Parts: sequence; C-alpha cells; structure tokens
Amino acid sequence: MLKQLKEQVLHANLALPKHHLVTFTWGNVSAVDRQQGLMVIKPSGVEYENMQPDDMVVVELETGKVVEGSKKPSSDTDTHRVLYLNFPDAGGIVHTHSRHATIWAQAGKDIPAWGTTHADYFYGNIPCTRKMTEAEIAGRYEWETGEVIVKTFAERLLSPRDLPAVLVHSHGPFAWGKDAETAVHNAVVLEEVAYMGIFSLQLTPNLSDMQPQLLDKHFLRKHGKNAYYGQ
Amino acid sequence: MLKQLKEQVLHANLALPKHHLVTFTWGNVSAVDRQQGLMVIKPSGVEYENMQPDDMVVVELETGKVVEGSKKPSSDTDTHRVLYLNFPDAGGIVHTHSRHATIWAQAGKDIPAWGTTHADYFYGNIPCTRKMTEAEIAGRYEWETGEVIVKTFAERLLSPRDLPAVLVHSHGPFAWGKDAETAVHNAVVLEEVAYMGIFSLQLTPNLSDMQPQLLDKHFLRKHGKNAYYGQ
Amino acid sequence: MLKQLKEQVLHANLALPKHHLVTFTWGNVSAVDRQQGLMVIKPSGVEYENMQPDDMVVVELETGKVVEGSKKPSSDTDTHRVLYLNFPDAGGIVHTHSRHATIWAQAGKDIPAWGTTHADYFYGNIPCTRKMTEAEIAGRYEWETGEVIVKTFAERLLSPRDLPAVLVHSHGPFAWGKDAETAVHNAVVLEEVAYMGIFSLQLTPNLSDMQPQLLDKHFLRKHGKNAYYGQ
Amino acid sequence: MLKQLKEQVLHANLALPKHHLVTFTWGNVSAVDRQQGLMVIKPSGVEYENMQPDDMVVVELETGKVVEGSKKPSSDTDTHRVLYLNFPDAGGIVHTHSRHATIWAQAGKDIPAWGTTHADYFYGNIPCTRKMTEAEIAGRYEWETGEVIVKTFAERLLSPRDLPAVLVHSHGPFAWGKDAETAVHNAVVLEEVAYMGIFSLQLTPNLSDMQPQLLDKHFLRKHGKNAYYGQ
Repeated sequence: MLKQLKEQVLHANLALPKHHLVTFTWGNVSAVDRQQGLMVIKPSGVEYENMQPDDMVVVELETGKVVEGSKKPSSDTDTHRVLYLNFPDAGGIVHTHSRHATIWAQAGKDIPAWGTTHADYFYGNIPCTRKMTEAEIAGRYEWETGEVIVKTFAERLLSPRDLPAVLVHSHGPFAWGKDAETAVHNAVVLEEVAYMGIFSLQLTPNLSDMQPQLLDKHFLRKHGKNAYYGQ
Repeated sequence: MLKQLKEQVLHANLALPKHHLVTFTWGNVSAVDRQQGLMVIKPSGVEYENMQPDDMVVVELETGKVVEGSKKPSSDTDTHRVLYLNFPDAGGIVHTHSRHATIWAQAGKDIPAWGTTHADYFYGNIPCTRKMTEAEIAGRYEWETGEVIVKTFAERLLSPRDLPAVLVHSHGPFAWGKDAETAVHNAVVLEEVAYMGIFSLQLTPNLSDMQPQLLDKHFLRKHGKNAYYGQ
Repeated sequence: MLKQLKEQVLHANLALPKHHLVTFTWGNVSAVDRQQGLMVIKPSGVEYENMQPDDMVVVELETGKVVEGSKKPSSDTDTHRVLYLNFPDAGGIVHTHSRHATIWAQAGKDIPAWGTTHADYFYGNIPCTRKMTEAEIAGRYEWETGEVIVKTFAERLLSPRDLPAVLVHSHGPFAWGKDAETAVHNAVVLEEVAYMGIFSLQLTPNLSDMQPQLLDKHFLRKHGKNAYYGQ
Repeated sequence: MLKQLKEQVLHANLALPKHHLVTFTWGNVSAVDRQQGLMVIKPSGVEYENMQPDDMVVVELETGKVVEGSKKPSSDTDTHRVLYLNFPDAGGIVHTHSRHATIWAQAGKDIPAWGTTHADYFYGNIPCTRKMTEAEIAGRYEWETGEVIVKTFAERLLSPRDLPAVLVHSHGPFAWGKDAETAVHNAVVLEEVAYMGIFSLQLTPNLSDMQPQLLDKHFLRKHGKNAYYGQ
C-alpha cells in the first residue's frame, strides 16, 4: 500500500539529520495521497538510523485512523492532518525543532523577508502564530496546533502556497511543499534565513523589510508561470 | 565485576564526543548499582579514543573508596557521589563543559523554559547554583560542588527527577537520568536549549517564561503515567 | 572547446560546498578566456554532486549568447558578464549566499577592515552596494546587479584588483580573483572576516577601523612587487 | 637533523585543521631544541595536506639563519624567535587566526577568566597587547610583534608559564606550552574560552571575573607540585 509514497516519506525523514535539522528522533515528515485520502507519516519516537519504509504509518486523513503500520504514528499526526485538510496545495509536510527557526518561534516573532535568499522561496515574512489558549492546550492539543496555524494564515490573508512555512509560538517550525522532498527543502531554507535574520538584526537593529520589488523579482523568477530559474 | 554497567558507562562516555559535548578528555559519565552501593565512573584525564570497559573505575558510594580498576577515577567523583546519595532516582550522571550550557553557568543564570523542546525534557527552568563560598572551595571542593547542587534543589523546592540538570556557577552543567544513556541524552537536550535560549533572549530581551499550561502539556505527554509519546 | 577552463570552473564550483559556502544549488563560479572573449559558467539549478565538466556552459562575453553547452547558464550570468567587462583583472568570479557575508549584505553594511586576516586579502573595507532602484529591478535585473557593483567601485574610487569582493544590498556577496580558484579562495576569506566582524563589533560596539599602517603592511606583504609571503 | 622534533612539529601543525583552528595555510607551529639553540617551524604558505617532516625548516634561534630545509620558513618566524628567547619555559609555539580568539584580538580586549574551563589552563585573564606603533609596523614587523608580546607580559607582571597565550591587537592569538603538542592543546582551549566568553558577556553584560579562590583551585589542581588531576 502506497509503497512509493512510503519510500519518499522515509527518504525525506532521513534528509532531516543529514541537513542538521533534528536531534535524536525529533522532527517528522509526512506526505499525502489526496486521491485516496491517505497520509503517510513517520512513526513516533523511532531512531532515524533504523527506520525502514514499512515503519511508515498510513493514516486516514479525515478520521485519523491508522489503516496500515504496526507502529504508532508521530504524536504530531493531527497537526499534519489539519494542514492537509486546509492547505490544498500541500503534498508534504515537515516539522522540526531546527535551532534557528525555533529561536524565532521561542522569541514569538515573524521572520522578516530581509534578503533574496528568503525571497527565492518565501513570498513575504514567515509568520509566527499567537500563543495557544489554555483551552486549546487542554483540548485536542495537536489538532489545535494545526488550527492555530490555519487561523494565522486566514486572519493575516496569507497564501500557504506562496509562504510554505510557519512558526508555532514557543514551539518550532512547520514547513510544506508540493511533496515531502520539497517540504524538507523549504525547511532547510527556513533554517538558513532564520540564522541570517538573527545576526542581520544584530548588525542593524532597526532593519526594515526588503524592497517589495526585489521580493517580487526573486520569488517570481523561481515560482509561477513566468519563472526562468533552473533548467 | 559490574561488567554490564562498565560497558554502559564506557558507551555513554564515548557518546560525549560524538554529540560534540566535550573537547579532549573533558567530561565524565558514571552509573550506579544501588543494590551493591557501587558507582562506575570514567578514569581521570584518559583520552576517549583509547578507553576500554576495564578502564572504568568502581567506587564505593558511601566511602569513595576505589574497589576495582587500575586507574584513578575522575576528579569529579565526589560530586557524582553526593548526587547519587541525595537524588535517589538518578541512575546515571554526566558532567561536561558543553559550550552553551557552560555559557549560562559562566553568566550565572538559570536557563528559562522558553519552548517545547525544553518542556519535553525539563519541567521548569534549569537552575544555576549560587557561587561557592571560599570555605567550600578551600575544603573538600568536589564534594562541596555536589552539596551546593543538592542545596539548590532543596532550597528552591525543585524535583531532581523532573528537572534532571543543573548549572554549577562559573563552572558548567551536570545532568542525570535513570541510567547513563539517559543522562547523556538529557545533557544533549540541555545543550540545545542553552544554545536556543541565548539567541531567543537576543531577539526578545524581555522574554517571559513559556505558559505553564504548555510546559505541563509537553512534559507530561512524555513523562509520568499519562505519557503518550513514543512507541 | 575550453576543456581546461571548464575543468577549472567545475573544480571551483565543487569547492563551494566543500568550504560550506553554499546550500543546495546556490552559488556559481565562472572563469573567462579574455583572448577568445568567452566565459565558462555553471549551469542553472543543477546539483553539485552530479555536475560534469561538459555541463559547464560557454557564453560569449559581449553578447551573452550561449556558444556551447546543452544546459541553461546560471541565472546570474549577466552579472558575471558585467564584472568581466569592467574589471579587467578578474579571471574568475564567484557568487554565493554564504551565511555571514550575506548577513552583512542583508544588514546593508560594509565589512570594515578590523584585522590582519582581512588585510592579508582585502585592501580596505569590503563595500556594500546601495539598494537597487525600482527601474533596475524591473529592467535587466541581473545585468543591473553587475552595474550597481561597478558603480559602487567607481563612485567610491575602489580598486577591484585590491578589493576583490563586494556585497550586493539585500542579496549576498560576489568575489573574484585572477582565476576561478582564487575567486573561491577570496570568497572563503570573505566569509571568515564577515563572521569575525559580527562578533568583534558585538564585543566593541564602537570599534574603529584597523590602523592604515597595519593594513598596508599585511596587504603588501602578500600582494604586489614587494610581497614576501609564501614560497 | 632534529628528526624527532620535525615529526612533532609536523604532527602539531596537522592538528590545527583537525581542531578547526585554521583555514587554508594559515597558522603555524614551531618547537625548540634549546640545547642546540635551534627551532623547527612550518614552511611559509604550504598546504597542510601535502606537508612532510622534511618540509619543516630548521632555524638558528639567535640569528634567524635557516640551517636546514629547502623551503622558506613561516613569515612569522621572527615572532616565534623572540618568544623563545624571552620565555624560557616555552618548548612549542603556535599561531593561528582561530575565529573566536581572533574576534577578541580584533576587538582589542583581554579574555577574562570567567569559568573553570579557563582556570584549568590559564591562570588569569588572557592579555591582549596594545596596538603596535607605526615605527614597529614599519620596522622589523614580525620581530616587533614578538617584542610587543614580551612587553605586555613584562609590564603587566604576567607569567608566560602560567598564562600560555596572548592576543596580538588587530591580529590574532599566539599560544605556547612545554612542547608543540601542548601549545596546540592550549590554542584549542583558548578558542573554547574565547567562544564562551563572547556569549557569557552577552547574557550578563557586566560580568565580573570569576572568584580568585576558584581560579586558584582549578589551575592548581592541574598545574604545579600539588596537582592531582589525571593519571
């Protein structure tokens, strides 16, 4: 069942330690088969070096029911589900506690678009959610984590397709993309811009956002119908 | 004698350079056999690459007497002893000068709980001890180092089981856990949160502690009888 | 065609990930054959691990026409062309988004000459260009990027031979040298001094430039007719 | 001639890139044979990966004359000579531009003794020299670099045996020890404490020096006749 998607998800999970985005078993990647309404996700708390394709867990998107796999799915499964159910362009999702993106999440701040590295991948500032309420934390916590992300994009009129990452307040980043590999790619870039942002701000404490024209130029030369970057 | 424990202690010591927690021979890990009242600890000043299980030194917990091993035990042995004698849940202890935890120790500050990475492992702020007194330094220094840790937990009503790490003022971190491997695991997480804390504070200079509800949620989903993380 | 130059350019491009100057396919190196008026440059968006000498693209310097190669040249090709056309001593050019040089570019600041590491390679502060105008961004953007670099050197009376690097505002660094390898060498040093500059300034917020005599001494012991460094 | 010393010096030079203290050919290590009045030092500008024992250059301590070796000695040879001639306990000397020690040198500041990592190796604050004068820079520059180090120790009544490192203003660190290996060891520790100092100061901007009693305790448990650390 979903053999190819499992291999993609495994491969994308293994890319996390390779890119220094995770410590121990932290972090998880999933991918979705929208036609079948199924999601493939990393098992909870399993070490990367021992993971096999068949350790990946298949979960029904609508119900959260495990339909294949002998292991428990990632504890963040419900957050992934909410994102897939609300962000129709997301084909893969990744969650990490990568150091510098997490620093911005802990500080409770958006990562401003301060350069073309950012603009090549993210069409504007990367939002940090508000703090979760006591009710959200006490309730279906992981589901509500997804909800607060979705609300952040809705209230701030952001496009999850053009801005494929978010910081959950006091927690860490989620990133997504058209598939699991692209989601991880975006998570790597997020970590780069998070790192550079900390020290750009240190050098120029009142640093303003980059020019909108330059943001447009770089994002649109890589994305959308007029893109001309790459082969 | 204690063959298995020696191998665990050796293995845990070798994990220190692997996780970039030590330079040269700095750092040491021990584990305890509470039934026999014996502690196994790294020898003093021996290079990691050459260590063998039989280099580990067996020390009587009550007296500090070496009961097996041809080498001198770690110079921090008495600190480990005090911690085992006062923290009944500690099965393994690790001491390092890992860079970022040591930075907080040198700065003389607790590491606040600023995110879920912290909350997944530490149930509150990681305490920094007061400075040691001249008498404590001039006396049985390594023993008194343990005493000042124990007093910090007692005076501040902290639970060493729920808060398995401490910073010794102007010195560096100690961490512990149910066994040597868990102690090292906690030392790695301590280093992560120490790193992230420095720059979270830089981004938001008046950063307040995370919400107690979120701290509870994350700590208790991994620890205690209602834990649901992992397999 | 230009077999040797292609191999040099490939080799120099492969040095970028080796020196931790690039993530993914970011960054590009070119070299010029001035006699033939041809430039060899990395293809656009191709992964480093798979690149072969024949993937390198040969471009006519004057016209920008691809004269050999089955792949599209780097999207930054026109920037390289402008630099070769205006900086007669440049034999190789490199562009990266290396973290710390990019931090200075994002902060919009020159990197001051604060030590002999800098003075050994760069004869003065490394300039950051002004922001590009809306017209420049909307026009032939990559060409105009080169133009703004050339204008920076002209207006500030800087010598591209003695100061073989620049920061493009809100973007990142370009570096050059007598050949592709030297260009990469300079990009590595640029990243070193960019890193050290951030924290030198943190320690001494009003840090003044180094003494001009010391700058002279170090630059001139490695460059020019009285150099005495090396074999 | 001096076969064993050459091997030690080569080995110590190769330890520099291993410990991430140097980039390219930067940095050099020497050792002295006091009985013969000879110094063995790295050749100038040669890549680490290709160095052989016979590339090491033998130099007469008093005169600076090369007495063996087909290559030019390090351009910093005269600085090493001055240090050997004035610091009778130095058996090996190392010079690097290691990032964090160089940051303190560029900032023109001593590295305060802020913790036991420092106190285990350095008996007090690590001094930064004054700026060199125009005459010193214009004169026998490398020799004068040594002289300004020696004067710093003399004027501030510091012991080069107990404080085996210095920062040369706007330049970088020199470290020494009883032999080449110990000199490199001290350079590694210097880099550690330099790193930790930057961020300790960031966390506590008015951080005072560590307690003198604790400095004594740690330095003297590893050095001098009452040392008890190690086997």
